[in-house]
Amino acid sequence: MAENETIARFLDGLASEQPTPGGGGAAAISGAMGAALVSMVCNLTIGKKKYAEVEEELKGIRQRAEALRATLTGMIAEDVAAFDAVMGAYGLPKATEEEKTARTEAIQVALRQATDVPLACCRACRAVIDLAAVTADKGNLNVISDAGVAVLSAYAGLRSAALNVYVNAKAIADRDFAGSRLSELEALLSGAEALTEKTYDVVKTKL
Amino acid sequence: MAENETIARFLDGLASEQPTPGGGGAAAISGAMGAALVSMVCNLTIGKKKYAEVEEELKGIRQRAEALRATLTGMIAEDVAAFDAVMGAYGLPKATEEEKTARTEAIQVALRQATDVPLACCRACRAVIDLAAVTADKGNLNVISDAGVAVLSAYAGLRSAALNVYVNAKAIADRDFAGSRLSELEALLSGAEALTEKTYDVVKTKL
Repeated sequence: MAENETIARFLDGLASEQPTPGGGGAAAISGAMGAALVSMVCNLTIGKKKYAEVEEELKGIRQRAEALRATLTGMIAEDVAAFDAVMGAYGLPKATEEEKTARTEAIQVALRQATDVPLACCRACRAVIDLAAVTADKGNLNVISDAGVAVLSAYAGLRSAALNVYVNAKAIADRDFAGSRLSELEALLSGAEALTEKTYDVVKTKL
Repeated sequence: MAENETIARFLDGLASEQPTPGGGGAAAISGAMGAALVSMVCNLTIGKKKYAEVEEELKGIRQRAEALRATLTGMIAEDVAAFDAVMGAYGLPKATEEEKTARTEAIQVALRQATDVPLACCRACRAVIDLAAVTADKGNLNVISDAGVAVLSAYAGLRSAALNVYVNAKAIADRDFAGSRLSELEALLSGAEALTEKTYDVVKTKL
């Protein structure tokens, strides 16, 4: 699995002329780092007397952040698979009419998947932003800067994955399918910048 | 070295109640992913007839991006070392007046280092943003979304590392030192958001 690569090797792959891993994998890692940092702030808040009042809430947040981290970490490999499937479909034979039809359909199937994978990444990153905002409000002041990094990472992940949704949705023939995905994406983006900036400001004020 | 850890293990460490790795390491990885993606776009542009006109320029950008990637990758470990040095200094004995004086001085030395490390991360991330902007203008259209992810990652890295500069500069007794670092930080941040947004818009228009 991609997450069992070393950081250095993943970065080498990212920099190389191989098309995968690419921006989609970077988006997943940004989101996963955001989720991990939400968990870290929770872990350093839970069990401290001073924060007893928010302990139960932060336990719930940690649980959700850890689930999102697992999802986002898995997306590093999913993004590669989805991209490779699109490339594979484009590489299918197209000598006969039958082959052409089969190839076109295979490309469309792969493109729909290559839209849904980054959209799922956007969904998870948006959820991380929401959790990071609460963590910045209620987490241990000694590690509040990490809540700020969490929201920035998740927001970069959201917007990065969005670019892949836009690219792939554009090439999808089924415009209802593409439209429904783009609508969901706009809903996920809506308010995300304002919440990120608000959270960053909350963190900066507390430093 | 930290970059030889697997991604999964780094994320586990980030999420754990151990204070390192923390937001500083995440910032360095965001910057390094940005630099790697700049290189990727260059690698997929250089050597293509259609882009012959920008080939020399992109070779120069790739070289700078690769140097920045190496610097940023090394900062994952530097951030841990700088934080641990601060914690170590706070843990020094303070029973006698002599010990107290030595401890205070050790804390200040460590804090200056813990300010300079994230500031260097900001400097490198800002340079990546500048390179990503050119890459988005001139890179291969087929991978232009990766230039968009590059700028978003580097910008998240810049603002994330900035939080650590703010935190540590605040505790530095030498206000001239702190002031000079905060001035440089403001210069690095200046225009970064506008350039990031402009680059993101350029990319979105080209998708």
